[in-house]
This record gives sequence, C-alpha cells and structure tokens, in this order.
Amino acid sequence: MARPGGEREIIARIRQGAGNSGDLVVGIGDDCAVYKTASNRISLVTTDTMVEGVHFDLRWHPSFDLGRKAASVNISDIAAMGGLPRFALLSLALTPATGSQWLAEFMAGFSAVLSEHDVVLIGGDTVQSGHENVLSVTVLGEMAEAELITRKGARIGDLVLVSGFLGEAAAGLALCRLGLAHDPDWQPLVNAHLNPVPLVALGRVLAASGLVHAMQDLSDGLATDLAHICAESGVGAVVTAEKIPLSPLLRKAAESCAQSPLDWAISGGEDYQLLFTVTAQQVEPLCALVREKIGGELSVVGRIVEGQGVFLEEAGRSREISYRGYEHFR
Amino acid sequence: MARPGGEREIIARIRQGAGNSGDLVVGIGDDCAVYKTASNRISLVTTDTMVEGVHFDLRWHPSFDLGRKAASVNISDIAAMGGLPRFALLSLALTPATGSQWLAEFMAGFSAVLSEHDVVLIGGDTVQSGHENVLSVTVLGEMAEAELITRKGARIGDLVLVSGFLGEAAAGLALCRLGLAHDPDWQPLVNAHLNPVPLVALGRVLAASGLVHAMQDLSDGLATDLAHICAESGVGAVVTAEKIPLSPLLRKAAESCAQSPLDWAISGGEDYQLLFTVTAQQVEPLCALVREKIGGELSVVGRIVEGQGVFLEEAGRSREISYRGYEHFR
Repeated sequence: MARPGGEREIIARIRQGAGNSGDLVVGIGDDCAVYKTASNRISLVTTDTMVEGVHFDLRWHPSFDLGRKAASVNISDIAAMGGLPRFALLSLALTPATGSQWLAEFMAGFSAVLSEHDVVLIGGDTVQSGHENVLSVTVLGEMAEAELITRKGARIGDLVLVSGFLGEAAAGLALCRLGLAHDPDWQPLVNAHLNPVPLVALGRVLAASGLVHAMQDLSDGLATDLAHICAESGVGAVVTAEKIPLSPLLRKAAESCAQSPLDWAISGGEDYQLLFTVTAQQVEPLCALVREKIGGELSVVGRIVEGQGVFLEEAGRSREISYRGYEHFR
Repeated sequence: MARPGGEREIIARIRQGAGNSGDLVVGIGDDCAVYKTASNRISLVTTDTMVEGVHFDLRWHPSFDLGRKAASVNISDIAAMGGLPRFALLSLALTPATGSQWLAEFMAGFSAVLSEHDVVLIGGDTVQSGHENVLSVTVLGEMAEAELITRKGARIGDLVLVSGFLGEAAAGLALCRLGLAHDPDWQPLVNAHLNPVPLVALGRVLAASGLVHAMQDLSDGLATDLAHICAESGVGAVVTAEKIPLSPLLRKAAESCAQSPLDWAISGGEDYQLLFTVTAQQVEPLCALVREKIGGELSVVGRIVEGQGVFLEEAGRSREISYRGYEHFR
C-alpha cells in the first residue's frame, strides 16, 4: 500500500527523528506500533484528516508550519478532554509534485510539536496521491479516568468559559486570502491560522481541578462547538456577544477587511482555544488557579440554560446560532 | 475541519451502526474516543491510507467491498503481530461527486468486517476532498505481551512459511484491469483483490503457540515483505520458487493473461496471508496445530540464512529479489 522506495527512505528519516518512551514496546518499522498503558490510566485516541485546497493552501502555508499544525490540531483534541498526549501516527498521501525538501520541512515542523509535548511518533505510512496532498494524523493520549472531561456534563446554570481570544485564526485566514500573509502588522493573526497552539497544559490544569463539567476545543467555531456540548449534555446555551473576547488587532483587521469581528469569533473556527462549563461559584477559583499555574485569562461568554440550541444575545436581541459552522475555503 | 452538515448526518449514521464494548469509556461524538486496556495487556495500533486511483479503482471496486477492504487491511496488521483487533477509527476525505448511497454501501461493508471481528468503530471524521476519495483507517488491538510476534526475531536456520496461496490478489487486479471483474470463472481471484480476508484467528493461534520467531502480513508481496523481516532481524533469506504455493486457477489466469504466476506471487502484494519463520523442528507440530485449531495449510517457501537480502532459487539459479515491490496502478 505504499511507494516502496520512497516509503523506506521516508520511514528511515522519520525513525531517526523519533524519540523513545518507556511505555513503547515496538515503534516505527513493524506492522503495528505496540505500547503499554499503566493499569490505572485510560487511553484517548483521535484522528483528523487535512486535505490540500480544503483545509490548507500551500500558496501561503509554509511546509514547516503545516507540519506543526497537523500535529497541533490532533494534540488539541487530547487537550480538550484533559488528557496527556503520548503517541502519534502520521499518514501522508503525497502528489508526485511534492518534493523531498517540502517533506523534510513538513516533518521538521511536525516533529517539533511532538517534541514540545513529549509525544513520540510511532507509525504511519506514506502513499501516492494524484492531485491533492492529504494528511491524516492519529494521536493517542492517556489520563486518570477520574479526571476525564467529556462534552456531556454541562448543567443548567453553568457558565460557559473560553480561553484566550476568539476569531484570531479566521482573521488570519482572511488576511492570507487577501495576500497579506507576510504583512508584519498582521503576524499574530496570520500565525494563529498557520500555527495554532494546542493547550495541553491548560487542559491538564482544568481536568485536575475537578471543577469543569464539560469541555471541548474550539475547532469549528463557538457556535458549532458549543452546540456540540449542548446536544451531548441535553441543554441549551446563551452567548452574550459583548462578552466574547476579541483582541484589538482582530478588531483592526475586521475594519480593514470590512468583516464582522464577531462573525469570525462565532463561526470562524480553528482557534483551538478551550471551551468549557463550570458552576458560577467556581469561576473565580478556577480563573485564579489557571493564573497561578500557567498564566493566561479565561472569559465567561455565556450560560447553560434549559432547552436546546445555542443563542446569541446582542444589543438586547437573541438569535439562534447553533451549528453555524466554518465552511473551509468556500 | 469538517463538512458541518454532512458530517453530523454521517456521524449519526455511523453511531447507529457502532456496537459497544465493556472497555469503551467514550465512543463516537467527543473530541477523542476513550477506552481501557486490561493491566496485563499491551496495545497495538496501525494506520493505513488508501487513495482513489492509486490503491483502488471505483470502476470495478464495488463500494461495499471497498468498505470491507479498508477495514480488513488494517485488521490484518493487527493479525500480523498475533493481536486481537478491538477498535477502529475511520477518516474519509470524499469528493463532492461521492453520493450518499455510495457512502451507505461503503459503511455497510466497513461495518460488516468490524462486526465479524468484534471490532467497535470509535471515531474518525469526514472531510471534503477535491479530486480523489481518500480513506484513512486506524485500528487498535491488544494482546498479552509474552505472545507478541514482531519482524525482528528471525534466526539463521529458521524455515520461512506462508499461509494460503500467493499471487491471488495480483491476478485478480490484472483481471479487473482487463475488464473481467464480473467473469464467473475468475471470481476467486477477483475477490482476493476486492475483498481480502484478515487472518486474525491464524495470527492468534501462531502467537499463542509460542513457536513463531518473526511474522508479518503479505501486503507488498513476498519479496518486499520477507526483505522487511530480514532487515529487521539482521539476516538473509532464500526462497525456493518451486515451493511457492500457486493455485491451479492462478496458473490458468497467468496463462490466459500471458503473465508469470511466480511474478504475481513474489511481487504482487495484497494477499494478506501471513509470512513467518520457525525452526525446522517446529514446522510439523505447528502445521498440525493450525490444521486442528482452524484448518488450512501452511507452506514452507524458504529458509533464513546468514547475510542480508532475499534471494530466489529457481531451476538451480539464484537471484536477489529484495524489495521487489508492488507498484500500484503503474
């Protein structure tokens, strides 16, 4: 199922870059990777596929950053449940036009993120593709079962919190499309799109706190992702527009692009911030804990209510925004 | 990272078809799937990507069979180490032209194989693709560590065995290309290409026997796959042409196609039979054990020797065949 010569060369290169881990029994180079999980730990697994022209555009996405992003978005799924990422598998379907330098840079970026999170690459494959490069990544993680945070636990009366600023990645994508990927003024936004950061440390602090009822990462935008939590928890949510954290640079970019900063924040997707619910009483202690342990601010953006669906309150009016998702490149 | 509306519909469909398992903590519908592994067991993981036009051709590959094959080739990697497959993740990158009926049939085939092996679908995603359908599957398995069979253990003096007949899938692909996919005379060969069977039960018997030194499945052909075992084990191998198990139907097809049946068997790939080494003394007891437990014949096709590389002895002459791989669709 592979490019015989090419695969061996790439595997050899990947093997050189792969770390090791005490729990790894068999790494790259056999039919499967084999590992152990401590008896009191549960395992987490996630997989994500990125297609050229749909999820990334090589006209402005440097190969190194794309490698970083392919790893980061999957690690973010582990962070979104409070887990610790451990192992990764990478499947690359590459067009004949994809050169070895591009691949080397992609792998350098991918490996850099793994290394930053002590994640070991343990398998995958490389195959030919005809027209598009397609990247499939699987990441395995682990954690104590008692600390697991799913999407199911949101309770009526909970407040809805997010980390960081929203809409940054969507603004960055809009700027890339306008040919402004290299404009120094917009680098924080462009970088949010090209090279998102998975919030593993924050996820671990939130999970260990025992205070969070439901959580996920913001991959498809606040409207869609909060709708997932609501659907899984059997509740509704109301988001207050004025409370959504928008950076000054985002507002400036929105003005410059004649776009709504709120739309980017609600429907933009790919911020990879964490979205979660806690009781009103626990918001202050949790914010203090996060500030103390890792720094960074959390924002209350809404509340969990009876019923279903996600509604946005803005200037005294309310409208449903459930599943108002991000439409890639359309 | 998804087709928002389409993904929810497909996930809903997949969830309905997904089974359950005592060790599964969180299935489809969260950021990650979460599961437990018994404390005395090790975990296995494998991933494989299949690209339209490279690994499959929709002109002759029915969607149901393709769904079966996508599951089977990954389960085969678990079988190749003697493991028990447990969980699967499926990432689909689908072109706009791919209709819902095609997808329903694909999922029916995929789910049928999972069900036959008590494997539970626990995650994945569906995304848009531009020109090609790309299928990425990850399968997780488990087993007792003491029973694990890697590619590393082949010893000088071992005999090299294979299960079943070789070259069947390559012959089937050749027949499909000639427009003979529906010719009733060739169905066993065509079916070997369209719908290979992962040999989980055989892998388990071989692993539990404690007699097998090195093993893998025949995915790229005897020449390449045996070269992997040799490279990992630091040994060489000699294959005897006359001993390679060729079915009467394969010989007939080779004559009809003016092809060499031996080439199909050595370089054809995709047979998903098991390839393994044992001491000469243990061949008879092992064959008897397999016959008793699950039926089916094993064939001795060669021997492990000092040095490196895989050599084919034919009519008194010897030539190197290492990594003489299968070049898909080329």
